[in-house]
Amino acid sequence: MHHFPVRIYYEDTDHSGRVYHANYLKYFERAREHVLGAEELVRLYREEGYGFVVYKVEMSFREGAIFGDELDIRSEVRRESDWRIRFLQNVWRPGGTQAAVEGIVELVCVDRDHRLVKLPESIRSRF
Amino acid sequence: MHHFPVRIYYEDTDHSGRVYHANYLKYFERAREHVLGAEELVRLYREEGYGFVVYKVEMSFREGAIFGDELDIRSEVRRESDWRIRFLQNVWRPGGTQAAVEGIVELVCVDRDHRLVKLPESIRSRF
Amino acid sequence: MHHFPVRIYYEDTDHSGRVYHANYLKYFERAREHVLGAEELVRLYREEGYGFVVYKVEMSFREGAIFGDELDIRSEVRRESDWRIRFLQNVWRPGGTQAAVEGIVELVCVDRDHRLVKLPESIRSRF
Amino acid sequence: MHHFPVRIYYEDTDHSGRVYHANYLKYFERAREHVLGAEELVRLYREEGYGFVVYKVEMSFREGAIFGDELDIRSEVRRESDWRIRFLQNVWRPGGTQAAVEGIVELVCVDRDHRLVKLPESIRSRF
Repeated sequence: MHHFPVRIYYEDTDHSGRVYHANYLKYFERAREHVLGAEELVRLYREEGYGFVVYKVEMSFREGAIFGDELDIRSEVRRESDWRIRFLQNVWRPGGTQAAVEGIVELVCVDRDHRLVKLPESIRSRF
Repeated sequence: MHHFPVRIYYEDTDHSGRVYHANYLKYFERAREHVLGAEELVRLYREEGYGFVVYKVEMSFREGAIFGDELDIRSEVRRESDWRIRFLQNVWRPGGTQAAVEGIVELVCVDRDHRLVKLPESIRSRF
Repeated sequence: MHHFPVRIYYEDTDHSGRVYHANYLKYFERAREHVLGAEELVRLYREEGYGFVVYKVEMSFREGAIFGDELDIRSEVRRESDWRIRFLQNVWRPGGTQAAVEGIVELVCVDRDHRLVKLPESIRSRF
Repeated sequence: MHHFPVRIYYEDTDHSGRVYHANYLKYFERAREHVLGAEELVRLYREEGYGFVVYKVEMSFREGAIFGDELDIRSEVRRESDWRIRFLQNVWRPGGTQAAVEGIVELVCVDRDHRLVKLPESIRSRF
């Protein structure tokens, strides 16, 4: 289980007073970069032209985060095949007894021309 | 079937050259407001304190939109119960032969204190 | 004077109930694309590798827009030199007697390698 | 001088390969919250209904940040009067010899009804 903290600023909320629903996908992405290794992702992108692309998303929302919250993004990762990797990612509010938001995000890898490629060896060997 | 156009600007894309995945949820939301009736949504919010909240999301991504695209957001809506309404929402690129992105978004309604309430009569009577 | 309409959705607001201040820069950019000609901008980018880059911004805020507003973005443009173009851009709320937000945005042009180039002839000849 | 780190993710960039210009205002805001004290800002908002509002912005852009950068947001603050506070905020890229982006942001304080109020005592006494 990987933990990643996200602080909620004005930019994250909408006029309902809660975090705008699409923003949780941003927090999931930030957390994934730390799970996969930000250095390695930058290297793969700059040197080899490989990027990760979201292929599938499922989210369910139980409770909305608010301004000032320090969220805990909890991620578990499983490689589904040589081509696809799957993250279970949940949002926990401070003092929460259950996840406020639950998500599943599946990624594939593409090259500079946006053609599907196998997951890079450096990723496959670790997950 | 409801159609809503979305133009892709710099703000919508990321450094991969495609639209950032979370942004499709914004386009879906803009389209839903026009399906439900923007005037009525504003009235419900200002006068009665009712707001719609995303409860569930599913998305699958087949192709990424790019800068300059004029997307067609196609929405179908079905009321699931007195409490829940469900949108099938797809993204079509110009000249596309299939949807670039497919989504399902379920909404519920809450009052000023973020408590779950029945869908407002003005919505229930129309869907 | 060029007019461009912007509708305010949930995504645009923050928990103060008003539009998040940075978002006005997005509306200014959308309006500029229509002033300069979206087709031509896309052509310049895809065929010649030219892109416009913001070089300077000034904004002052008098009043905040809210959910449901249909804003009028008013733009005036003046070419400052062969290298630099300047937009006066204001935000008007429905029924407003003065601009809610006033802005000045200066742009320069860069090539694919992010090197400064002269404004393209197709732009220079029109402004 | 206050330092605040900002990591650049996919969400921050646009298809030019650089950070989208409006996003620097988000980083400035995140940094300001840490300068002013996030706890105190949340307390002022929840208990007293006070919020800070951007009143004026100036920015100039010299260089664009890219995916993977760890930016250093450098902030200096000066209280201009009992009503207005001014931040000099610059963006430094890793290894930079000058600021990539320079900004000035002025804030005022408003109450729950968005009426201008004096800066709270807890802020005035510190700056």
